[in-house]
Amino acid sequence: MSITPIAVTDPPLRNAVGLHAPFALRTIIELVTEDKVSGVSEIPGNVDINAALEDAREVIVGADPFQLNGLKLALDDRFAGSEPDQRGDNPWDERRLVHVFSAIEVACLDIAGKITGRPVVDLLGGMVRERVPFAAYLFYKFEGAGGELGFKTDPHAAAWAAARQAEALDPESIVAQARAMCEEFGFVPLKLKAGVLEPQIEVDTMFALREAFGPHVPLRIDPNGVWSVETSIEYGRKMKDILEYYEDPTRGQEAMARVRKALGIPMATNMCTTSFDDIPRSIRLGSEDIILSDHHFWGGLRASVELGRICQTFGRRLSMHSNSHVGISLMAMVHMAAAIPNIAYALDTHYPWQCEEVIAGGRVEFEEGTIRVPREPGLGVELDREALAKLHDNFLKCGITHRDDVGEMKKVHPDWEFKPIRW
Amino acid sequence: MSITPIAVTDPPLRNAVGLHAPFALRTIIELVTEDKVSGVSEIPGNVDINAALEDAREVIVGADPFQLNGLKLALDDRFAGSEPDQRGDNPWDERRLVHVFSAIEVACLDIAGKITGRPVVDLLGGMVRERVPFAAYLFYKFEGAGGELGFKTDPHAAAWAAARQAEALDPESIVAQARAMCEEFGFVPLKLKAGVLEPQIEVDTMFALREAFGPHVPLRIDPNGVWSVETSIEYGRKMKDILEYYEDPTRGQEAMARVRKALGIPMATNMCTTSFDDIPRSIRLGSEDIILSDHHFWGGLRASVELGRICQTFGRRLSMHSNSHVGISLMAMVHMAAAIPNIAYALDTHYPWQCEEVIAGGRVEFEEGTIRVPREPGLGVELDREALAKLHDNFLKCGITHRDDVGEMKKVHPDWEFKPIRW
Repeated sequence: MSITPIAVTDPPLRNAVGLHAPFALRTIIELVTEDKVSGVSEIPGNVDINAALEDAREVIVGADPFQLNGLKLALDDRFAGSEPDQRGDNPWDERRLVHVFSAIEVACLDIAGKITGRPVVDLLGGMVRERVPFAAYLFYKFEGAGGELGFKTDPHAAAWAAARQAEALDPESIVAQARAMCEEFGFVPLKLKAGVLEPQIEVDTMFALREAFGPHVPLRIDPNGVWSVETSIEYGRKMKDILEYYEDPTRGQEAMARVRKALGIPMATNMCTTSFDDIPRSIRLGSEDIILSDHHFWGGLRASVELGRICQTFGRRLSMHSNSHVGISLMAMVHMAAAIPNIAYALDTHYPWQCEEVIAGGRVEFEEGTIRVPREPGLGVELDREALAKLHDNFLKCGITHRDDVGEMKKVHPDWEFKPIRW
Repeated sequence: MSITPIAVTDPPLRNAVGLHAPFALRTIIELVTEDKVSGVSEIPGNVDINAALEDAREVIVGADPFQLNGLKLALDDRFAGSEPDQRGDNPWDERRLVHVFSAIEVACLDIAGKITGRPVVDLLGGMVRERVPFAAYLFYKFEGAGGELGFKTDPHAAAWAAARQAEALDPESIVAQARAMCEEFGFVPLKLKAGVLEPQIEVDTMFALREAFGPHVPLRIDPNGVWSVETSIEYGRKMKDILEYYEDPTRGQEAMARVRKALGIPMATNMCTTSFDDIPRSIRLGSEDIILSDHHFWGGLRASVELGRICQTFGRRLSMHSNSHVGISLMAMVHMAAAIPNIAYALDTHYPWQCEEVIAGGRVEFEEGTIRVPREPGLGVELDREALAKLHDNFLKCGITHRDDVGEMKKVHPDWEFKPIRW
């Protein structure tokens, strides 16, 4: 079992909490069997999660990669009572056990796929689609392309490389960003990370996107929970005719349910309903229509398939959330989304914002905004060990140990602070 | 794809609907790949389900056994609108599509296990237990051991062979039946199929079992929904201190919820919540504590694993229902129960009531009421083709085409009729 923290270049993207640091942390896990079959996975990184993975070694090493149910129980035991396993108020998820199990499960499924000669999707019941669509993920941002420790040239075409670098703090520059991203990757739906500027500017941005792209391009806005119920309703009313769905305008299941009831448009979440424990209250209150799963946070690919069944049972729909990531997480998402019938929307991905890769063959290619589901055994990716070493070196040199978007923003605006509800 | 209807000897067991016929119908499905890998499954049989399996051929033949999600969608399409897919009022389930998909899924998982060299449980996430416990399933019955077309001697030890033959229409004879069954198979929990005699006699039977077996033997009673809410509460009060759970005393989710609220003891169902479509209302009303799944009715083994997650999410527990069956269904139940963490009770099985077998090696052995989870690839069973041919011959000769417990009872009591609520 190898645990390799990496740091990948991340531009100064803004969100409701603050600002992305010049590097995003991921952790790459590799499990190798006695027969030298290797399985890999990738999870959001920080030193606490890396320490938890170290703690999990005694449970993992020597185990059978097919005994995932038993491994889950053993990890539950190992971590029982060791910490309050809370999600936290951030748009990302701070629980450790689900990250650890997701890391182990995906690597084990990669191994199981290789041993059985089957792609991971076939271990999840098989493909219901041959290509998985993704959405353009647009960000307000400061000028800049992120850290430069191990990375010299942007691998993207000139237009997206320039847009990725450019400041985007108003509707026009977001439209330009969207045009460049869609030209490079072929995405159709557009998602704006909001909760950053005054709500009216963000609404204006959505209407500028509508004006530029026309009514056939689905639009989503995600204020990351920092709008009050009243603000969510007020600005939601203005946008209700142009949104594919309205993602986490406000914080908590009860507030989300109030907004949903007032507006009657589809609402999505990756913040108010983020674990199986949250499901009963979500059903009772009616807090969302669409759960944006994330296999790193829901406990793996099989748990996400089970979440798909829950969504189907209760008339909810399913799609996927993303954080900054490289190709292993991307391909795990592709296998999972290929297996779930009721995935009804193009998935989120931060992939266009990164430039590096840890998998052999380099950056994954999108074709018309979609990725072909691999038919190779396992996840269908192999580690590029030289690239991995370089990105691990980035991690060691960059000095970042935790994601801290507030701290990063304070470097630009010293009086910045996080507000759970800002508007 | 081979579809082989069989008839196995079934004693004159009584239930709320009427009487078991001298033969129980099952259908054995065998799928063979181009590479001659064979997968088998078994489902409750009748000529309609056999016809539906025939109709499914065009979807199944040529398909990839790993593409279960795609096969499900293709079967949904094939059968869309062809009939109202209703469960019916009987204790057994009359929907066809779930039976057909269950048949295909289990046989495909058997193939997938053989191809990959893994037991089916490992394709469901792996084992959380090495042995699966079953309960003694007690029946009021007339004298007799069932049909005799293809079966001459009872393979069981003398005591159980005699008890299996004996009349049991009062508390004392049920105690004798329980003693003989437990001596033969080693079961611990005792379940009485009730809804047959006056409620007070059935309550007396439960107290006689308690008296005979002591407080450490869990007891369950299942009146199959024919008691009114008032009767369920009245007789439930008398038994509340001696029941492990109270199974389907009355009919429908709302009535069950009223009984559950009045008594505050664990309640189980395989009648009021029998499909994913029933789950939201079950949660809203609180109609039961324990869902007795049946992979033949819930759409296969993977769907049952997903049901396990739903139960876990909503604080329900899971166990398994049974109909008369032979070893293929038995072993499918064992693989499934071995993979689901929140299976909290010994499973139901009618297996002691049958004498024949279609699997090589003959009747499956219980050890202290449990069955060891196979570690052989697939389900771990092979067809005994001679035995299968003989039991198919039984099917052809016995003349039974549908389960008809009312009609069977009319042969004994001509004025018998089914009453959804009898007491």
